[in-house]
Amino acid sequence: MSHIINVAVAGASGRMGREVVRMVLEDPELKLVAAVATSAGPVDAGTLVGKPDTGVIMSANLAEALSRCKADVLVDFTNPKSAMPNAETALAYGVRPVMGTTGFTPEQIAELDKQCKEKGIGGLIAPNFSIGAILMMKFSAMAAKYFPHVEIIETHGDQKLDAPSGTSIKTAEWIAESREEIRQGNPNEEEVIEGARGGYYNGFRIHSVRLPGVFAQQEVIFGAFGQTLKIRHDSYDRAGYMPGVNTAIKKIMTVTGMVYGFEHFLD
Amino acid sequence: MSHIINVAVAGASGRMGREVVRMVLEDPELKLVAAVATSAGPVDAGTLVGKPDTGVIMSANLAEALSRCKADVLVDFTNPKSAMPNAETALAYGVRPVMGTTGFTPEQIAELDKQCKEKGIGGLIAPNFSIGAILMMKFSAMAAKYFPHVEIIETHGDQKLDAPSGTSIKTAEWIAESREEIRQGNPNEEEVIEGARGGYYNGFRIHSVRLPGVFAQQEVIFGAFGQTLKIRHDSYDRAGYMPGVNTAIKKIMTVTGMVYGFEHFLD
Amino acid sequence: MSHIINVAVAGASGRMGREVVRMVLEDPELKLVAAVATSAGPVDAGTLVGKPDTGVIMSANLAEALSRCKADVLVDFTNPKSAMPNAETALAYGVRPVMGTTGFTPEQIAELDKQCKEKGIGGLIAPNFSIGAILMMKFSAMAAKYFPHVEIIETHGDQKLDAPSGTSIKTAEWIAESREEIRQGNPNEEEVIEGARGGYYNGFRIHSVRLPGVFAQQEVIFGAFGQTLKIRHDSYDRAGYMPGVNTAIKKIMTVTGMVYGFEHFLD
Amino acid sequence: MSHIINVAVAGASGRMGREVVRMVLEDPELKLVAAVATSAGPVDAGTLVGKPDTGVIMSANLAEALSRCKADVLVDFTNPKSAMPNAETALAYGVRPVMGTTGFTPEQIAELDKQCKEKGIGGLIAPNFSIGAILMMKFSAMAAKYFPHVEIIETHGDQKLDAPSGTSIKTAEWIAESREEIRQGNPNEEEVIEGARGGYYNGFRIHSVRLPGVFAQQEVIFGAFGQTLKIRHDSYDRAGYMPGVNTAIKKIMTVTGMVYGFEHFLD
Repeated sequence: MSHIINVAVAGASGRMGREVVRMVLEDPELKLVAAVATSAGPVDAGTLVGKPDTGVIMSANLAEALSRCKADVLVDFTNPKSAMPNAETALAYGVRPVMGTTGFTPEQIAELDKQCKEKGIGGLIAPNFSIGAILMMKFSAMAAKYFPHVEIIETHGDQKLDAPSGTSIKTAEWIAESREEIRQGNPNEEEVIEGARGGYYNGFRIHSVRLPGVFAQQEVIFGAFGQTLKIRHDSYDRAGYMPGVNTAIKKIMTVTGMVYGFEHFLD
Repeated sequence: MSHIINVAVAGASGRMGREVVRMVLEDPELKLVAAVATSAGPVDAGTLVGKPDTGVIMSANLAEALSRCKADVLVDFTNPKSAMPNAETALAYGVRPVMGTTGFTPEQIAELDKQCKEKGIGGLIAPNFSIGAILMMKFSAMAAKYFPHVEIIETHGDQKLDAPSGTSIKTAEWIAESREEIRQGNPNEEEVIEGARGGYYNGFRIHSVRLPGVFAQQEVIFGAFGQTLKIRHDSYDRAGYMPGVNTAIKKIMTVTGMVYGFEHFLD
Repeated sequence: MSHIINVAVAGASGRMGREVVRMVLEDPELKLVAAVATSAGPVDAGTLVGKPDTGVIMSANLAEALSRCKADVLVDFTNPKSAMPNAETALAYGVRPVMGTTGFTPEQIAELDKQCKEKGIGGLIAPNFSIGAILMMKFSAMAAKYFPHVEIIETHGDQKLDAPSGTSIKTAEWIAESREEIRQGNPNEEEVIEGARGGYYNGFRIHSVRLPGVFAQQEVIFGAFGQTLKIRHDSYDRAGYMPGVNTAIKKIMTVTGMVYGFEHFLD
Repeated sequence: MSHIINVAVAGASGRMGREVVRMVLEDPELKLVAAVATSAGPVDAGTLVGKPDTGVIMSANLAEALSRCKADVLVDFTNPKSAMPNAETALAYGVRPVMGTTGFTPEQIAELDKQCKEKGIGGLIAPNFSIGAILMMKFSAMAAKYFPHVEIIETHGDQKLDAPSGTSIKTAEWIAESREEIRQGNPNEEEVIEGARGGYYNGFRIHSVRLPGVFAQQEVIFGAFGQTLKIRHDSYDRAGYMPGVNTAIKKIMTVTGMVYGFEHFLD
């Protein structure tokens, strides 16, 4: 009897994909059985991550790769366009999709949930695999019940395109759900320099700092009578997401239906 | 019909006691009915806190003061020696004790719980009334389940006598209860300067910083693969504890038996 | 022979003014000789600050007060409108003005400098007496030479009217003087929520956080290859400015002419 | 006429050495002319750092390598035992040594200085090439003049052997030089848990935090009346030292004699 989980990786040559390949190769409870990347040539997957040959040759086509191996789980870090077809391909082969890709519509999620249940297997769509980031969001929502006055400061590398970050908006949504909307600050407040008070969300503010050398950091600050409470998560590199992906691969074997949000895998 | 709660304050001339007197006077749902301090003369309680006369003259004897008024709740910020007799005196008069004093033994708590139940009223012993500090402890215990590697840094004014602080030890206890004991760090670690690695507790470390200008701050840091999670509470003055004492006075009216720890009054 | 400096205080009944009165009374090298406040009645200045009688009765008129005492220094925490006339009144009586009030025009400063030099005495106009804040600004300007990528986050109480704070703008000016203007961040950056990226100044950003319970805090963050450098000043109450005012009173005795900016009194 | 500087690297296969090789290959003003590592085979230096062939074959012997190329500068990240002989070998060949290795005695430094001057060239011994860390130390020494009450908290990965870190001890030395020794804290202070107050140095304390996921962080906290000033440097990876090594290689060409401490290369 074996508990080894067979893992296929889509988007294997990307920055996150390579971390997944490396993590799978290093966990004796997991076995790499396929690695898919549209642009990579037919090299051994080990080469991509500076490791010895694995016997798994990179493949350009997901369906073909899944047809040749007995994968239990597909980990997909591709792009919003490929995500839905990849998830459906996985399910067609009875493979549990663990999707690190964003951009699914509610209808698509419902459809995938239906297909999961028909196959009697689980699936996961997770915009964020960081256990630390999810704890930060969870604690922030809990604290907002007692300390409704809050602001969020998130810091990312200076080449990031969008502001505020997806994680900060998600955090803001969780906070908004757990407290009444209050318009914070002085009603007669005036910005001497436009934008100084940050982005407005549900009565509070989100501030986006962009600096070279930073990977991803966020601080949620609650202010109350004579005190402040701060919850801060600093992420130093992509490898920090791997404990979460690892947990997801193992938990997905025990559920049925499509789960949205990695937070549901934390107690 | 009135919902006004009659409040007596013991230790009324101390630093915390005066904050309680001020808070009670400022809340229209509360009424100051007695103020006890062994060393204060028979002046009006308002004088102590820079407020107009209240009609409540300071008293040197708790039993006598309680016999002359219909108090619902006694808030006690005295000292470990007076705490037990004061709580028993309150209960003898059917007054709910809210004890901000430390040093009760388990036997004493059990005895007070018995007396509370005989009278059919509630009581509270709370080493810490800070909602923010309690959330910090709660979140720390939750985080330790996922991130067992942790250290605590607490900072207080430079005249504080004991290190580490009571709050940091309490936090450490909560963390120890929610994770397996692991001896963190390099087993061959060497202190070039003795004490640099801080105080040892259940496999992790507590560091006590003492600096002028600081009231009370604590940061709990969790380290994991590629990330750190920090939970930090900064308390700027004693007034920051009053929302907690206020909540306690109101909640105590609705419970029976002796409650240990203000955290039980937070959902 | 005596080194005692005789101090008059204008705006003595305001929040800063009372701190100054208290500080002067507590320093044996200083002597309170006049306390002026337009709205206060003729009470003893000690009453204002919860101290025993000082023999100095509050006065409503500065010129009259200065005519009756031999003041060496006037400390003025009034308002922009009274500041210029008060400084000139002081100089007319040969009293050195230490002005904690903002709003002087360059012409007014030049005029006061002329009057100072005619009298052969010194004067000071200082928007900020915080030694810590000035060190933060000084270090920030020094760091910007090596780390040109920078952002400023300042946090104040939630009732503050203007954003960003005067101190943060002053810091930004110092930084701008010590580095070349560079437009930081991704040129194609997009704000999903307007204002998220903060206020723009000389290529970098200033973020203003407003939360209850906070007095005044500022953090200047420099980001570079693989590292961040942070300089942070937390001010907990008005009393934190008093060491600076005290230093100013003593240094002003040794200079001639009007000095602008307390930083010139730090080596 | 060419300004290209020819660089040899000793300890080229180590973690720092490889970063240096990479940095040299990426700077068009520098040219890699030798790469020495006792344990590496005769492979091309590019292979070590995942780059194309460079034409420089790894060498096991420094003297032999230097005899075969016209190096201007030797960058050495080896170990305390090899450091002195390597520096002397470099000087024997007229090559400027940039030593990132610790453990030189004052006598050895004096001897190397003599040899540098005989050859009319410069040399550098630098325990720390981080510009950010050096600014942190410099600012700390400056702040200590005004704020003598200080503590240091340094955080490193949990497998680090020594505590406190070399950088924190260096910072402590700089602080000790710029203020009078004062024994901080309450003289009757008591450690409930031994070591909680950290390591004692010149009247103040150093605290060493060790957590997985952290590379190198240090915060110097100054406490004074109503305020705290913090100077913090977070280093995320070894690459963060390379701007400093790069600067050193270029500056060393312009000096004569042995310089101790990279701080002397910052204005």
